[in-house]
Order: sequence, then structure tokens, then C-alpha cells
Amino acid sequence: MKPNFTVRLRVFNLNCWGIPYLSKHRADRVKRLGDFLNMESFDLALLEEVWSEQDFQYLRQKLLPTYPAAHYFRSGIIGSGLCVFSKHPIQEFTQHVFTLNGYPYMIHHCDWFCGKAVGLLVLHLNGLVLNAYVTHLHAEYNRQKDIYLAHRVAQAWELAQFIHHTSKKADVVLLCGDLNLHPKDLGCRLLKEWTGLHDAYLETQDFKGSEEGCTMVPKNCYVKQQELGPFPLGIRIDYILYKAVSGLCISCKTLKTTTGHDPYSGPPFSDHEALMATLCVRHSPPQHNPSPTHGPAESSPLTSVLREAWAEVDQGMAQAHWWATMAGYAVGLGLLLLALLCALAAGGWNREAALLLWTPNVGLVLGAGVFYLFHVQEAKGLFKTRTELQHVLGRAREAQDLGPESQPALLLGQQEGDRAEEQ
Amino acid sequence: MKPNFTVRLRVFNLNCWGIPYLSKHRADRVKRLGDFLNMESFDLALLEEVWSEQDFQYLRQKLLPTYPAAHYFRSGIIGSGLCVFSKHPIQEFTQHVFTLNGYPYMIHHCDWFCGKAVGLLVLHLNGLVLNAYVTHLHAEYNRQKDIYLAHRVAQAWELAQFIHHTSKKADVVLLCGDLNLHPKDLGCRLLKEWTGLHDAYLETQDFKGSEEGCTMVPKNCYVKQQELGPFPLGIRIDYILYKAVSGLCISCKTLKTTTGHDPYSGPPFSDHEALMATLCVRHSPPQHNPSPTHGPAESSPLTSVLREAWAEVDQGMAQAHWWATMAGYAVGLGLLLLALLCALAAGGWNREAALLLWTPNVGLVLGAGVFYLFHVQEAKGLFKTRTELQHVLGRAREAQDLGPESQPALLLGQQEGDRAEEQ
Repeated sequence: MKPNFTVRLRVFNLNCWGIPYLSKHRADRVKRLGDFLNMESFDLALLEEVWSEQDFQYLRQKLLPTYPAAHYFRSGIIGSGLCVFSKHPIQEFTQHVFTLNGYPYMIHHCDWFCGKAVGLLVLHLNGLVLNAYVTHLHAEYNRQKDIYLAHRVAQAWELAQFIHHTSKKADVVLLCGDLNLHPKDLGCRLLKEWTGLHDAYLETQDFKGSEEGCTMVPKNCYVKQQELGPFPLGIRIDYILYKAVSGLCISCKTLKTTTGHDPYSGPPFSDHEALMATLCVRHSPPQHNPSPTHGPAESSPLTSVLREAWAEVDQGMAQAHWWATMAGYAVGLGLLLLALLCALAAGGWNREAALLLWTPNVGLVLGAGVFYLFHVQEAKGLFKTRTELQHVLGRAREAQDLGPESQPALLLGQQEGDRAEEQ
Repeated sequence: MKPNFTVRLRVFNLNCWGIPYLSKHRADRVKRLGDFLNMESFDLALLEEVWSEQDFQYLRQKLLPTYPAAHYFRSGIIGSGLCVFSKHPIQEFTQHVFTLNGYPYMIHHCDWFCGKAVGLLVLHLNGLVLNAYVTHLHAEYNRQKDIYLAHRVAQAWELAQFIHHTSKKADVVLLCGDLNLHPKDLGCRLLKEWTGLHDAYLETQDFKGSEEGCTMVPKNCYVKQQELGPFPLGIRIDYILYKAVSGLCISCKTLKTTTGHDPYSGPPFSDHEALMATLCVRHSPPQHNPSPTHGPAESSPLTSVLREAWAEVDQGMAQAHWWATMAGYAVGLGLLLLALLCALAAGGWNREAALLLWTPNVGLVLGAGVFYLFHVQEAKGLFKTRTELQHVLGRAREAQDLGPESQPALLLGQQEGDRAEEQ
């Protein structure tokens, strides 16, 4: 690696809206997307919502000459929908499925069945180790009354932790995906504070595209106005985020988004807008910049966002406990009713009516039982997240109070944080 | 960190057999274990099967003066059963829950409800970064006809991958736990080959304990002879494994196991034997030793074990597909019967009989539906594992064929492996 080297990285990201039978003009959109990716020859194309593996295989064949490496991240029942096409060989890949991802009984929302995840690719570019992550978090269906908020915050934290723990030897970290989070949302701030990732839209020297970088815009013919709710001009929920280790400098030279149609002014590729970034990595003199990924973070925004996340997850935990308790009562009630029906049937009461009532009662007991177990698991998952947040919060607080030099005191603080966490 | 420094690390590992209401003399055993851990003052005590959080809290309070830091890894419905007590501050912790972990309908085996996982702790000891992992894999109930074999191999691979990707900046890696794998079992070989971890029992200079290092022995009053099956002298399924980065040398000075009773010749702490190791970390001149954790492995044992694992996971995938297909047929049949019953009831057939048959049929459709979804998910999880294995296998094979210097050819090979994997 020469001291004055520059690595240029052209990245493409798109949530493809590829739901078989439901998404409009899917085959045509996938075909046109393939043509575009072939023509543009990006270094990396990271896609979300490629729900059909046939679509992936179609793109794989089509893109093979330009992008010899590709991977589809399989998980859950439907799949994570995540895939990647790379001009450069993929050295390694793995994935992490989020512990919490909505509710199986919210069948119409479907997220639970997808096994939402984060995928990791390790690439070697001109002697640099690049960790590229692709993800898609739980959708937001109702911003005013968001029953999935605690899950999305937990997912953002798990995503941040996965990046934090798996990128310690990477020179450059890149995260692309549909976060289903607005830039100022708790999950987005938490992710950025804990990983130290920068937002290409906020950092770029040259932006061309939709107003305020929105990735769902009313001009897109596949976007229904009511989906945008109180944001008639559009929302920004798809991101390209990046960082480099000390000694390297990464910048976003250009960032483009599509603007409600494809880059040739034809029909759009998806209901989301595509992001296209040109990143530049070069040497820079090492600076004393205590990155939050390599030790306790001293910044106050971190403490504040951790506290906020803790409160949100804590509230989610209380909710999960409440549902588990209710389900427990329902199981008890169902069992009581079943015993009563048995007694009545044995006592010569209208047997037909007893049999008619038997089915819904068995259903109640079984359904409530599964519901109970699910919410117990949910509460455990949220508890785990809260404990991790509390631990980091303890360390960050101590570091803030005592200054970065006070390592022994910091460790003591961490211990105390530990103690508190388990009480 | 002085150039001639030595770090001594005393580690304790035990599967505690702490099932509430079912495990004999649990309270007494936990109390005595706490007394022993306090007296011995290990650096780290890693425990499995602490299923009751009350037991953890009890130990936490009891051990607080000797082990100021502790953590309980929460997951699944029951919990992972994993916890750790540390004399040194815990810098960071996180966990990864295994994608595959048995079947929810095997209620008597219970593993699915536990959310089996691997827990990670990051500790700083005299300037060294220690990544300590604790885990517990799916139990083996029938060695002759092991229906969980593919899951356990997938878990071993996921464990190895988690260690591989999260320990890249660690100086020392330590893995303790109940692997439910004999030393020559596929999963154990896969884990060791892919991570480069060494087995304390095989490496130690001074071993005292049960014959052949067994951790379930017939002398233990809680072990039923039939549990040991064709191994009347005992089995070795609990491990302390370790490695250090180049430039450091780690060795196991002493390894002890209990031998069917506690260290004071009293009743045993558990149905498993405890492992107690003294590890020594010191500087050593860096050697050219291409570790399998930092690039493609050239060794033939790796290729061979990867191929074996691939075949096992592939067979598991075929099995999962078969079950999903059968369940699909059962759903179809159930729906057909329901339609028939409706028609018969409407046509004036014996309504009581129709109603009686309605319940089991609804049960059949719902049960088979859930069964179908579960096995589709299982097949996806195994497919994901197989793809990862195939990718690494492709890279290892190429490296082996072309020699470690042939980096460009290796990368090309990796690409081809990639192509094959997705076909």
C-alpha cells in the first residue's frame, strides 16, 4: 500500500421492492436494474427486499461478467431479502439475524417471517480490508403509534454491536441499507454514535438528487401519498454510512439519488430511490481521535442517546411483560372453561353446544400459550438489549465524569455499572 | 506491556445442571459451588446450565467480593443458561443466538426453548485484550440415531464463525463450555480447525483428574449409566480451548477436573465434572504461521473437515425439505377434510359427528402449517451454513492447490467458489 495511494469505491444501494405477486412490474424493474448495474459497473451493489431467490439468480446470471462475486443472505422463513453483487472477490461473509423482529401474529405486516438481518462481507481492496454491511430493519407502519419502536431500537443496537465487534481489524467500514429510520430517529442516532459511522448525504461534497436526500418521494409512481404520512415531501430512510480507521481518511466525493424515476427518466426501479456514492479512501496523518468503536466513548451525545434507548427498550420490556401476563390469564381462563365444558357434557348438558364451544376453547388455550411464550421471549430479548445499553452507559458516564485519562477509575465505574445492571 | 511479561490466568468451567424442580440437590450444590469459587478465587468462572436467574443472582451476591464483575446471558424463552463471574472488569459483552437449535415440538428435549447461544466477554489484562467465549451446544440424546446432528454441526460452525469474526483484534482467545461433542466428533474438529483453538486437555503439561479427561463419569452419583451409552468409562464433552496471536505464546500449565465428587471429596457440584486450568501467556518471537483465522487455511485437515461438514449439513437440508413437503401435504389434506365436513354438515349428515371431527382437523391444519413453516426456516438456516462452508472450502482448496503465495489465483478461485455456491 503506497503512502499516497487513493482507493475509489463506487457503491450502489437500493431497496428493490421485490415482493412476488404483490409488487408491480417486478420482472421489468429487475431487468432494467440489471441493465443499469451492468452499464454503471459499480464496485459494490447492495440490494434489499429481493424476496424472491429467482430474482437474485436472474440478476446473478445477468451481472456475472461485471460483478463476478455475489451473495444472497438466507434467513427466517421468507428470507432476509438482502443480497450483494461485487466487482471484487468476496473474501468472507457471514450474517447475524436480529433477535427481535416484530410479532408472528401480525401476519399482514410480515416482517417476523422475513428474519431481518445484517449481512457482512469482507473484501480486500488494494491492501485495504473493507467490511461492507447490508441491512434492512423492521418497517414503520404507523409513526404516531409505533408498536415496533422498541424492536427497531433493539435492532439498531444489535446492528451497531455487530459492526462494533466484527470490524475491529477493518480499515474501512461501509454500511448500506434501508434502516426504516429517519435521520433524527433514536435508532439512527444510536447506531451512528456507537459505531462512529458518517452519513454520506451529510458529508458529501457533491450531492445530486431528490430534495433533502429523500429515498421515498411522492413523485415516485409506486409511492402512495398516505405512506408518507406527515412528510408530503418525502422521507429519508435508506443510507450509505462509512468510516475509516485512524491513519486513513474516507470522504464521499459524490452522492446521487434517483428522483422518482430511473436514471434515464423511465419508470422507477422501485418504490424507494437508489443511492449511488463515490467514496475516496486515502492516507491521512494519524490523529488522536478516540473512536467509540475502540474503547469507551466520552461524548455526551452518546450518553444521552444511550439513556434514551435504555428508556425506550425498558418501556418495551414492560409492554412485553404485560402481554405475557395477559396471555397467562387467558390460558388459565381457557383451561377453566374447558374443565367446565367437560363437566357440563358429562352431566348431560346440550352436548352439541359443548362440542361447538370446545374448538374455540382449545384454540384459546393453545393460542394464548404460544402468545405467552412469544412475549416471554420478547421480554428476554429486550432485557438483554437493556443490559448491554446499561453497561455501555455506565462506562460512558464514568469516562465523561472522570476524563479519558482516568482508566482505573473508569474500570471501577464499569464494575459498578455491572453491579447495577444485574440488580 | 513489558517484553518479558507473563500473564497467569486461572479459569473454571462447569455445566451446573441447574434445572429448577428437576435437578437434584440444586440449592445445596449451588451454595457449595459458590463457597468453592470464593475460596479458589479464579480469574474467570464460566458456567453453563444456570437455568434459573435466581441461582445466578444468589451466586452474584455471594461472589461479589471475589468476583466483582458478572454477567448472565439472556436469550430464548428459558434462557441460554450461560453466565460468567470475573475477578477483572468486563470491558464489553455481547452474544449470538444460534440460528438452529432443535425442534419446538420436541418438548421433552427442551433445547429449542433455551435459545442456545455463545456469549462473548472482552477483558483487558495487563495490556492484553482477552476475548472469552462461553457456550453450550444442543444436547445429544441418541448417538446412534442423532436427529440433531446437522443442527449441532451448524452450531459448531456458527460458533467458529462468531469467534473468527469477533476476535480479530484479540490477543488471547478463550472458549469454555459444554460442546456436547466428543473430541473426535465432526463439530469439534470443525471448530478447532477453523478457529485454530487448542484443547487444554491435549496441550497441558500437568493433568490431574478423571481418566482421559472425561467430564461425565460413571462415578458421579448424578450420572445414570445409560446416559453414557457405549462409553462406560465416561465421555469428554466439556472443554477449555485457547489460542494467542502471533508474538504471544499461551500454554496450559495445569489442568484439573473433578472426579465424580467435589474437590473436598463431598457430593459432586453437578452431573458434569468441573474443569480448572492455569494458563500462561507470555511473549514469543513472531513466527510465520498463517493462522486460519486471518486468511484462507492451507491445511488439508481443514479441507477434509469442511467437506465432511458440508455433506452432513446437506443431508440435514434434504431432511428438512422432506419434512416441509410432508407438512405441506398434511395441510392440503386437512383443508380438504374440512371442506368435506362442511359439505356433510350442510347436507344434513350427523352434525354431532361433523363437529367432533372439526376440532382435530382444525388442529391438523394449524399444526401442520406451523410444522411446515418451521422446517422451511430450518432448511434456510442449513442452506446458509452450507453456503458459508462451501465458500471457505473453495478458498481453502484453491490455496492448497496453488500454494500460499498465489494470492491472485486464490482470489480467482474464491470467485469461482462463489459462483458454484449460488448455483
